[in-house]
Amino acid sequence: MTTPRVPGVTLDLDRARRCGFPEVVFGEGKPPETIVDIFQAQQAAGQACLATRVSPVQAEAVLAAFPAAVHNAVARTIRLSRPASREAAGRSAGPAARGTVLVVTAGSSDRPVAEEALETLTWMESPAELITDVGVAGPERLLQHVPRLREAAAVIVVAGMEGALPSVVGGWVACPVIAVPTSVGYGTSFQGLTALLGMLNSCAANVAVVNIDAGFKAGYLAGLMVRTGATA
Amino acid sequence: MTTPRVPGVTLDLDRARRCGFPEVVFGEGKPPETIVDIFQAQQAAGQACLATRVSPVQAEAVLAAFPAAVHNAVARTIRLSRPASREAAGRSAGPAARGTVLVVTAGSSDRPVAEEALETLTWMESPAELITDVGVAGPERLLQHVPRLREAAAVIVVAGMEGALPSVVGGWVACPVIAVPTSVGYGTSFQGLTALLGMLNSCAANVAVVNIDAGFKAGYLAGLMVRTGATA
Amino acid sequence: MTTPRVPGVTLDLDRARRCGFPEVVFGEGKPPETIVDIFQAQQAAGQACLATRVSPVQAEAVLAAFPAAVHNAVARTIRLSRPASREAAGRSAGPAARGTVLVVTAGSSDRPVAEEALETLTWMESPAELITDVGVAGPERLLQHVPRLREAAAVIVVAGMEGALPSVVGGWVACPVIAVPTSVGYGTSFQGLTALLGMLNSCAANVAVVNIDAGFKAGYLAGLMVRTGATA
Amino acid sequence: MTTPRVPGVTLDLDRARRCGFPEVVFGEGKPPETIVDIFQAQQAAGQACLATRVSPVQAEAVLAAFPAAVHNAVARTIRLSRPASREAAGRSAGPAARGTVLVVTAGSSDRPVAEEALETLTWMESPAELITDVGVAGPERLLQHVPRLREAAAVIVVAGMEGALPSVVGGWVACPVIAVPTSVGYGTSFQGLTALLGMLNSCAANVAVVNIDAGFKAGYLAGLMVRTGATA
Amino acid sequence: MTTPRVPGVTLDLDRARRCGFPEVVFGEGKPPETIVDIFQAQQAAGQACLATRVSPVQAEAVLAAFPAAVHNAVARTIRLSRPASREAAGRSAGPAARGTVLVVTAGSSDRPVAEEALETLTWMESPAELITDVGVAGPERLLQHVPRLREAAAVIVVAGMEGALPSVVGGWVACPVIAVPTSVGYGTSFQGLTALLGMLNSCAANVAVVNIDAGFKAGYLAGLMVRTGATA
Amino acid sequence: MTTPRVPGVTLDLDRARRCGFPEVVFGEGKPPETIVDIFQAQQAAGQACLATRVSPVQAEAVLAAFPAAVHNAVARTIRLSRPASREAAGRSAGPAARGTVLVVTAGSSDRPVAEEALETLTWMESPAELITDVGVAGPERLLQHVPRLREAAAVIVVAGMEGALPSVVGGWVACPVIAVPTSVGYGTSFQGLTALLGMLNSCAANVAVVNIDAGFKAGYLAGLMVRTGATA
Amino acid sequence: MTTPRVPGVTLDLDRARRCGFPEVVFGEGKPPETIVDIFQAQQAAGQACLATRVSPVQAEAVLAAFPAAVHNAVARTIRLSRPASREAAGRSAGPAARGTVLVVTAGSSDRPVAEEALETLTWMESPAELITDVGVAGPERLLQHVPRLREAAAVIVVAGMEGALPSVVGGWVACPVIAVPTSVGYGTSFQGLTALLGMLNSCAANVAVVNIDAGFKAGYLAGLMVRTGATA
Amino acid sequence: MTTPRVPGVTLDLDRARRCGFPEVVFGEGKPPETIVDIFQAQQAAGQACLATRVSPVQAEAVLAAFPAAVHNAVARTIRLSRPASREAAGRSAGPAARGTVLVVTAGSSDRPVAEEALETLTWMESPAELITDVGVAGPERLLQHVPRLREAAAVIVVAGMEGALPSVVGGWVACPVIAVPTSVGYGTSFQGLTALLGMLNSCAANVAVVNIDAGFKAGYLAGLMVRTGATA
Repeated sequence: MTTPRVPGVTLDLDRARRCGFPEVVFGEGKPPETIVDIFQAQQAAGQACLATRVSPVQAEAVLAAFPAAVHNAVARTIRLSRPASREAAGRSAGPAARGTVLVVTAGSSDRPVAEEALETLTWMESPAELITDVGVAGPERLLQHVPRLREAAAVIVVAGMEGALPSVVGGWVACPVIAVPTSVGYGTSFQGLTALLGMLNSCAANVAVVNIDAGFKAGYLAGLMVRTGATA
Repeated sequence: MTTPRVPGVTLDLDRARRCGFPEVVFGEGKPPETIVDIFQAQQAAGQACLATRVSPVQAEAVLAAFPAAVHNAVARTIRLSRPASREAAGRSAGPAARGTVLVVTAGSSDRPVAEEALETLTWMESPAELITDVGVAGPERLLQHVPRLREAAAVIVVAGMEGALPSVVGGWVACPVIAVPTSVGYGTSFQGLTALLGMLNSCAANVAVVNIDAGFKAGYLAGLMVRTGATA
Repeated sequence: MTTPRVPGVTLDLDRARRCGFPEVVFGEGKPPETIVDIFQAQQAAGQACLATRVSPVQAEAVLAAFPAAVHNAVARTIRLSRPASREAAGRSAGPAARGTVLVVTAGSSDRPVAEEALETLTWMESPAELITDVGVAGPERLLQHVPRLREAAAVIVVAGMEGALPSVVGGWVACPVIAVPTSVGYGTSFQGLTALLGMLNSCAANVAVVNIDAGFKAGYLAGLMVRTGATA
Repeated sequence: MTTPRVPGVTLDLDRARRCGFPEVVFGEGKPPETIVDIFQAQQAAGQACLATRVSPVQAEAVLAAFPAAVHNAVARTIRLSRPASREAAGRSAGPAARGTVLVVTAGSSDRPVAEEALETLTWMESPAELITDVGVAGPERLLQHVPRLREAAAVIVVAGMEGALPSVVGGWVACPVIAVPTSVGYGTSFQGLTALLGMLNSCAANVAVVNIDAGFKAGYLAGLMVRTGATA
Repeated sequence: MTTPRVPGVTLDLDRARRCGFPEVVFGEGKPPETIVDIFQAQQAAGQACLATRVSPVQAEAVLAAFPAAVHNAVARTIRLSRPASREAAGRSAGPAARGTVLVVTAGSSDRPVAEEALETLTWMESPAELITDVGVAGPERLLQHVPRLREAAAVIVVAGMEGALPSVVGGWVACPVIAVPTSVGYGTSFQGLTALLGMLNSCAANVAVVNIDAGFKAGYLAGLMVRTGATA
Repeated sequence: MTTPRVPGVTLDLDRARRCGFPEVVFGEGKPPETIVDIFQAQQAAGQACLATRVSPVQAEAVLAAFPAAVHNAVARTIRLSRPASREAAGRSAGPAARGTVLVVTAGSSDRPVAEEALETLTWMESPAELITDVGVAGPERLLQHVPRLREAAAVIVVAGMEGALPSVVGGWVACPVIAVPTSVGYGTSFQGLTALLGMLNSCAANVAVVNIDAGFKAGYLAGLMVRTGATA
Repeated sequence: MTTPRVPGVTLDLDRARRCGFPEVVFGEGKPPETIVDIFQAQQAAGQACLATRVSPVQAEAVLAAFPAAVHNAVARTIRLSRPASREAAGRSAGPAARGTVLVVTAGSSDRPVAEEALETLTWMESPAELITDVGVAGPERLLQHVPRLREAAAVIVVAGMEGALPSVVGGWVACPVIAVPTSVGYGTSFQGLTALLGMLNSCAANVAVVNIDAGFKAGYLAGLMVRTGATA
Repeated sequence: MTTPRVPGVTLDLDRARRCGFPEVVFGEGKPPETIVDIFQAQQAAGQACLATRVSPVQAEAVLAAFPAAVHNAVARTIRLSRPASREAAGRSAGPAARGTVLVVTAGSSDRPVAEEALETLTWMESPAELITDVGVAGPERLLQHVPRLREAAAVIVVAGMEGALPSVVGGWVACPVIAVPTSVGYGTSFQGLTALLGMLNSCAANVAVVNIDAGFKAGYLAGLMVRTGATA
């Protein structure tokens, strides 16, 4: 395979074959034109595109080059479907999702991280839904969603501060829970470290953890899980 | 006031007057006879006695000197009522407790810390009850106790691992919650640090925190709270 | 109960019933109109309102919508009484405070956190007073306030740097002490972590701790404590 | 449902219904007879049993009561199938696994944690296989297993020291990778903390993380993942 | 030797004799004219000059004084050859490098640190080459460079996030590997600490580590290594 | 000066000339005979000897060789005066102490560290006195010693837990205070780290700090301070 | 004694009597007029004034009120002698310094902290001198100052990065060494924490430590030490 | 290549070809017979053997199987030359060392780590020498060795406590310095972390660092460095 050259970047266009989905661009600090170049190369290879942690300036550059791109300012993401010709030719080579992913937040400040997860799932063509602001200090807020939680194929729980929500959700469901600590809080929240440690020590056995504010990773993992063991 | 001499120890016999209750002995590392000497001095001053973190050897020495002492091996405490003559003369000078303290544990391994809190409350002549093993991964276990929780004058919640229980309890009650992190857990529980951080960052506003495994402090604070603002 | 909708927020209007006082808004990062919306919904439910960590812009928006709101710029709070009709109908359903809370600071830089505690107590209709700048390096400054301290129903001690003041206050009083570490200091003060650790390890048994700079939590807990065990 | 009483323990027998699998006993520090009692209660409810972190003494007690139990001394687990009558009545109510879980270790000292994951998967009736000692310093050791890795429905990677193996494995596969840091190493490995941090920061997007030495959690999550979205 | 005075600075002009190469200026926070003065003094002593961590303003001042200086804005370095007269007189007194140093980066954000290492090697008159963006999540990217890696006399590996690349490179080569952690990442990357810890715990035996973002130190050490044991 | 050989040790017999007092042996982990050999060499050079952190076995070996040595089992020290002939010839060449050092402990468990400081001062022929168990929770205990504190030439304050005592003492005296954190406490005392941090952040300006449990260093520094600026 | 009122500040005018020198103002965050008010009150009490960590704006306000004040912009201090009338009446009531304090820096970036120490000593009327930029990587720079070091009554060593200089200086002198870690460095210097830890673990016995960047404390302690044991 | 099977271990016999030297066995926790089996397999492949961190029991087992093995109890290593037949056939395929490695320790407790480095160098057939106990508090001890240091091809500096020695050595030499922090010290030495951080922040540019107590890695790296750029 000839790798289309993006200056200063060694693109991994083979990743879609190896890992099921194309490489995702971590936008932070990259020159806008680099992101545009990568999208160009990926589109040329018939791949869908996703960039995370993009600034407004980066998003603008991508939108100028690809008017069809979708920018979510809250999630700080920008994404682009596979080129139309390929789309027409049939859906993605990968297996279809076998169920819906539920993304749940403890507080309204956890929203951007949840949106990043949702955007990632959309890019993966995986059905997903959002429940917000059901932190444990208002217990009835969560209880009314238990039936919906029990129908999900995977749950992503996004929480800052003490990060207790994944444990509580974990106690109600039979599917894997992916916990995402956020940097929401103050003082000894230590920018999400406390939430992370709480999630790693969850007394619920079905809780896996990703890095602080890693909405993308949570979405990506959930998207893989709902395809696990399937054949295309 | 003449301070009865215990070698190597400067007793604070005035504490009962200043702080409402006599000094409590932190047993760890003290020679058994030192604890006996302190109890002797406190009894002579008409005070009730409590020692925490006592080893079996220390407890045995105290029991030999004071057969009426009560040793709780799980709590690692030993306590002794005020001398009978004084007892007869009327109850403690301090105000009576205005309600019951509920001590709640997340798991069965948190029991020793809960017992230390209970022993402290007994020494303070404060009514207290215990609910064990209602951690958040089994949500119904707690839900069935909500009515009892809502009647308590103060709640002590003892939990290790991610320390999520105080937040959940805090969302159900209108009284102060004292959270006690325990060193129960492994790996990133960091001997209770994770539970402590979780509790400090509780999204419930009514949660105060004490040191890791500090059952005594939690009991003592609860005992003071149920007397707050009262006059003897 | 129908929950009035605030976009992106799941209001917990039932909290006043469960926990004795309505939900408090953590302002940081919220759009000003969201705070206004929440206040609107709470007023409609006959509840008093309090927002903490509000910026000048947020405060201005609230004041524009509710000219009767009280903004404390030092405390970074804004609060609003229950709507007049209800007020007229009689005082709050909750029990009255049984004594005064004393808020004590170690240095003049600890003032904003102390003010947040005071504003919270005012919102709870709990009598409270302030003593400032009595850190331990000038011991006589505290000694002259001991009689007043001994009359308080609860004491909040606000201190940064080494956080020694709660231990010293704790040695003089018979009521619970709530210690609030502040991010005042430099170098190894670690933005309040050192003060927090010192307070958790207080040799005084009557010291409970809250998160760094958590003036609101300290005020709220003190407000609950002076009502503990009371019936409305 | 009436909860059979185990003294000092509040059993969550309903968990199998809520979460798909029965409660698992964390053996550390529990009296041997408590574990026996819990197994008894679970068997009576027709549930399979698993205890982790069991000492030889605990294992012996369980084996005495249940000669059919399987003790894995390396994994420090003991497990017991559902009672025969129920077994005969048909297989577990839950959905069947849709593929094989591969458990991979970086070094031979990571073996006990890998065995705990394998035992958990066996208890869940989930097919699983083991590849050992393919750490990154000997790159060909892993490369020869790539085809097998690519056929797995989920991969568990167990590694201590720098914890680099999950990133490398993640780059080769299209399924979720569950990374388990182990306390193998010395000096700045900090009993597994370094491996944990490395795994949380993996540049591979398909890596989820569990607590240090948490072989049970990894196995349990993998067992759920290979059933995700399935109906019984 | 008389030390030419730079105000507020005690120059170590003897270092070239003792350590093989002249002192290098750490630019951060120094007044621009101080850097100019130091360059002046070093040139007067016939020494080549290098300043690291220079701001654009500092670089401009040096370029104004020494138009022949080379400023690398990405590396944040500025350097200057020995004065021409000396250059003409023959090459540096030190031994010549015995091979090429390969500088390898995991991601494109690690580039500035790699450039600092390259500039340092150029100042030392040591041949060096760059391979970028071959992080472990795209394994083939590295594999295609293995033959080149195996010919290097020393390899510098620059990586952030989990810092796994040095271990993988270390498994392929017979020369020393100098690992440079970078502050690239988010959340628990802790500004490079996680990469550093990973590198210190490398399971490859040939990996030495320097401080976070210390491209200069890595370059300098590699420059010394390829001269080790040689005589001028 | 010919250095008498102790196998595996490079003795610094010149230290008495450079630093005023001979080298002190850190006993931990040294073979008993090594300590004996060092004492022998120092006595031969006319120097007084001190070993710290000695085990009973080490002490026994030294006492067997030097029956005049003084072993303090609480302090874990052993010391030996200069050889008699020299003693007779006049007192130490160094300047005499100009005042008394007061060693103050917060609790009775801080005693061993205080004793190490006292033994060091005795070895330095510096007058010193001990006040024990005057921690801040019993404020009157310290107040009664204020006049004595104000007469000291230097004060050493030994405290664990929150380490508040040095700040309080510092507020009463005009001489330097050397704070020694001890590993006394539990939970977040972190083996003395909390006390250390508290002392470093003391709001009293006259507090210097040494390592955790470093009674020897505190004694040594105090011994130097009371001689500062004097001529022999 | 009547305390002159400064709004929001409880002045400790008695400190000069208790501690030998008046209270020093920590300027950071204080309104400029508060500093002016405190200076006014101290001058009225016949006391010399010193404020540290003052911003240019604060300094300007003080200079406007007291043209005789001395502002050191590098040290960020401003100081003022006792009012002339008192000065004329004789020198300070305290004892005179018995020797010179030497302030030594490792690098030129440590200068501001050293200047703060020097300003403090000047305010204490204590002779002091400065040696800069003699860090351990250029060993001859220090060696040439050894004779001067050996004549000092106390040495303050200011160093960032690895903080090795105090140990090296400590090995050459017989007086106390006060080590001041600075926040100079990058990466794992952790804003001075590494230097602090190094200094606390100095293998030289005569090294005491103060907080990071605490030039004032070091100067103050040295100023006390050179007066220790003296009578006015 | 057929890998001879050692049960539970995946031997990397190809490492000698890839990396210049065979795999080294980390003994900790391995069954003695596993080490014997690995040695057997390596000897069969004509390779020299080295195991580190071996217990006396492990060493005994190896010595029983290979009487020619050399056990260094201080270093906790055991090593074995290549089988004689191969030895006779000519020396190792690798390049010869170009100079001597000097191993330097700060204190006598650092000896075991230094010995591990020396044993590794011997196994690599690299000339090496030892200088012990020249820590910075006794400066002349190092100064007398400067000429020897300046002749070394590489220097390994082993130090605990504040870890200052590598910086001081680095200032005297023109070759690479490998710093090995040791877990020697107490209190805030944090089992070698303080020494490690000091070494990473060395102001000397020629200092590379390895893990705490990693004598083997330091020796291995030095052995590679003195061969860098050479052809066999």
